[in-house]
Amino acid sequence: MKAAVLYDTNKPLKIDTLEFSALKYGQVLVKIAYSGICHSQLMEVRGKRGEDKWLPHLLGHEATGIVQEVSKGVTKVKKGDRVVLGWIKADGIDAQCAEYFNNNQVINSGKVTTFNEYSIVSENRLIKLDKEIPLDEGVLFGCAIPTGAGIIINEINPKENSTIAIFGLGGIGLSALMATKLYNFKKIIAIDIEDKKLTLAKEFGATHTINSKKQNVKEEILKLTSNQGVDYSVEASGVAQVIELAFNSVKKEGGLCVFASHPQNGDLIKLDPHDLICGKQIKGSWGGACYPDRDLPKFFELYKQGKLPLHKLLEKRYTLEEVNQALDDLENRKVTRPLLEIDTKLEEER
Amino acid sequence: MKAAVLYDTNKPLKIDTLEFSALKYGQVLVKIAYSGICHSQLMEVRGKRGEDKWLPHLLGHEATGIVQEVSKGVTKVKKGDRVVLGWIKADGIDAQCAEYFNNNQVINSGKVTTFNEYSIVSENRLIKLDKEIPLDEGVLFGCAIPTGAGIIINEINPKENSTIAIFGLGGIGLSALMATKLYNFKKIIAIDIEDKKLTLAKEFGATHTINSKKQNVKEEILKLTSNQGVDYSVEASGVAQVIELAFNSVKKEGGLCVFASHPQNGDLIKLDPHDLICGKQIKGSWGGACYPDRDLPKFFELYKQGKLPLHKLLEKRYTLEEVNQALDDLENRKVTRPLLEIDTKLEEER
Ligand SMILES: NC(=O)c1ccc[n+]([C@@H]2O[C@H](COP(=O)([O-])OP(=O)(O)OC[C@H]3O[C@@H](n4cnc5c(N)ncnc54)[C@H](O)[C@@H]3O)[C@@H](O)[C@H]2O)c1
Ligand SMILES: NC(=O)c1ccc[n+]([C@@H]2O[C@H](COP(=O)([O-])OP(=O)(O)OC[C@H]3O[C@@H](n4cnc5c(N)ncnc54)[C@H](O)[C@@H]3O)[C@@H](O)[C@H]2O)c1
Ligand SMILES: [Zn+2]
Ligand SMILES: [Zn+2]
Repeated sequence: MKAAVLYDTNKPLKIDTLEFSALKYGQVLVKIAYSGICHSQLMEVRGKRGEDKWLPHLLGHEATGIVQEVSKGVTKVKKGDRVVLGWIKADGIDAQCAEYFNNNQVINSGKVTTFNEYSIVSENRLIKLDKEIPLDEGVLFGCAIPTGAGIIINEINPKENSTIAIFGLGGIGLSALMATKLYNFKKIIAIDIEDKKLTLAKEFGATHTINSKKQNVKEEILKLTSNQGVDYSVEASGVAQVIELAFNSVKKEGGLCVFASHPQNGDLIKLDPHDLICGKQIKGSWGGACYPDRDLPKFFELYKQGKLPLHKLLEKRYTLEEVNQALDDLENRKVTRPLLEIDTKLEEER
Repeated sequence: MKAAVLYDTNKPLKIDTLEFSALKYGQVLVKIAYSGICHSQLMEVRGKRGEDKWLPHLLGHEATGIVQEVSKGVTKVKKGDRVVLGWIKADGIDAQCAEYFNNNQVINSGKVTTFNEYSIVSENRLIKLDKEIPLDEGVLFGCAIPTGAGIIINEINPKENSTIAIFGLGGIGLSALMATKLYNFKKIIAIDIEDKKLTLAKEFGATHTINSKKQNVKEEILKLTSNQGVDYSVEASGVAQVIELAFNSVKKEGGLCVFASHPQNGDLIKLDPHDLICGKQIKGSWGGACYPDRDLPKFFELYKQGKLPLHKLLEKRYTLEEVNQALDDLENRKVTRPLLEIDTKLEEER
């Protein structure tokens, strides 16, 4: 099967034909239909996560596909099931990581990878996809939606009539923005450096937008909040200084900043301890604090109610062979969530 | 009445004779018996809290005394009551700040001040002191105990058999250490730069001590915790880098650092955002998240059960005229919690 392999950080991925051996306890073989590309993958490929001890290896952590075969012990899914693959730990066996082979060379892999035609996935990285959700949009339930919407629903759980600012309108930030519709926010302020993201944010329900390259974000937010700062901020730009800005934008007493960003290895954030003593809070998010088996069905419902217009995030599609182009486009902010079409025929087969 | 006045930051306090006018709505006149001195006062006097807009002003935020007179509206205390004065907001009227006069010059004051013979206190900065608690030890219920013990009880609320490290063994840190006795900790690691503080910590129940001037704290803590880090850390050294160290000492997933320190104005803390994403938490404390009316009676009980050996914190006593010496001694770490004896006869009068 074809797969995109990272042999060296900061080099293009190479499309190779790999073999794999029989399934081990708790593993599931999935034929991948579509995969999304998250900023986290870009950072890994570019070598910005420190030394990579697992080279060469496969990549990708949100996808959809169809189960081909299950190993001993697996009860959660069966052959023929349409599934979402994601990195957030779910119910099921925590199987060992899969190994692939390029002739005799071992190609490493995690509990789940998705830039490959077939994937051997640990049972606890799979969820059945609701049958009304198409496989292409479904990929976003692997990472973007649980993380972004999970931040709002699980980690912020906003009080009535509050104000929020969302920094960085990529896959995660826009998913957070979508989830704000479930609540009664007084003001929803969206911040990015790309005007086209701000236009999109308006469609998603932002009441105000700020281009942080052109305007002073802190000042604008103070103007919009009677000099108080927002009740909540969400940060997902990937940049350490933007985490600081998001923290500095919440109000003094009880303001909460939740960030998803995982910046370049070694980049630190600088905070004023007095802000924390006075009651500002900062939290890092791990997949929006989601339990996929509990939370994904809720998100599927929202989708079916028309509250998650996921297609708007997936405006550009690429073949597996074009994965490097997709990574470049993500890096250069030319695409929101690149969608890899790995096997588009799988949808028709159902 | 005599009072210690801060006319200029970074200058000694001046003992002056001040006047005050009739009580206003919600104010209570207290004759002060004893006052503690907190590191926060030292920072204010030394001008390390940024520009001081209230000069000249009075100081002090933990004390005991006897109510002399109450104004209209006050129901919480009456003439003759033995009371604790503290800075943490409690039930009662939030009265305006008192003014004092040196001839015709206005001397500012907050809702509570304590380096003075008489104090005009807002009703909501007072609590009746349990009659079995002496006025000298009682001062610590104004700041040190609620903050330090409150961090353990209200903000950490430790799980069984966990590990904790306490950084900075002054009034706050030792109060936190005292409160660990209420729980079943597996390891209690106390850290300071003064060996005599470490000796004291042993008496207070620390299972391990580390002198951070002589040993590598992070390494020692890893050794003591099978390379995991502690479940909880409490920080109260007053130094930004020690907050960072306390944060870096908790374990990766779910470790919690609560700090009390309010370092010099402008000093920032640098954190690795990845630590926060992986589930480490950091919180600043505001008076140990105490509600004095709810929490102080609990602390009084603990005292009466012999669980709070407060006298060990108050090994050095000073007259009001010696307040500058007391501040110097606190700065030079020659005393744990300086005790100002303002009117020692009040105790006998009861
Ligand atoms: N914590 C988690 O569980 C988790 C999960 C997924 C992703 N992540 C991280 O979240 C971050 C975002 O991921 P993504 O896939 O949504 O990224 P993305 O590249 O799709 O989106 C980033 C957005 O931020 C904007 N941006 C860039 N610099 C900015 C700046 N200085 N100010 C304001 N906006 C700016 C970009 O224009 C873009 O719209 C990444 O760091 C990723 O690693 C974390
Ligand atoms: N957040 C709050 O509600 C609150 C309340 C009271 C006090 N505070 C703050 O808490 C801090 C502590 O107050 P305190 O009155 O207990 O102070 P303190 O001066 O009595 O105690 C500080 C202790 O830290 C030790 N120390 C100094 N440098 C150190 C280092 N590098 N490493 C380890 N230990 C070191 C000292 O030896 C001393 O024992 C101050 O910053 C104060 O302003 C905050
Ligand atoms: Zn992701
Ligand atoms: Zn204090």
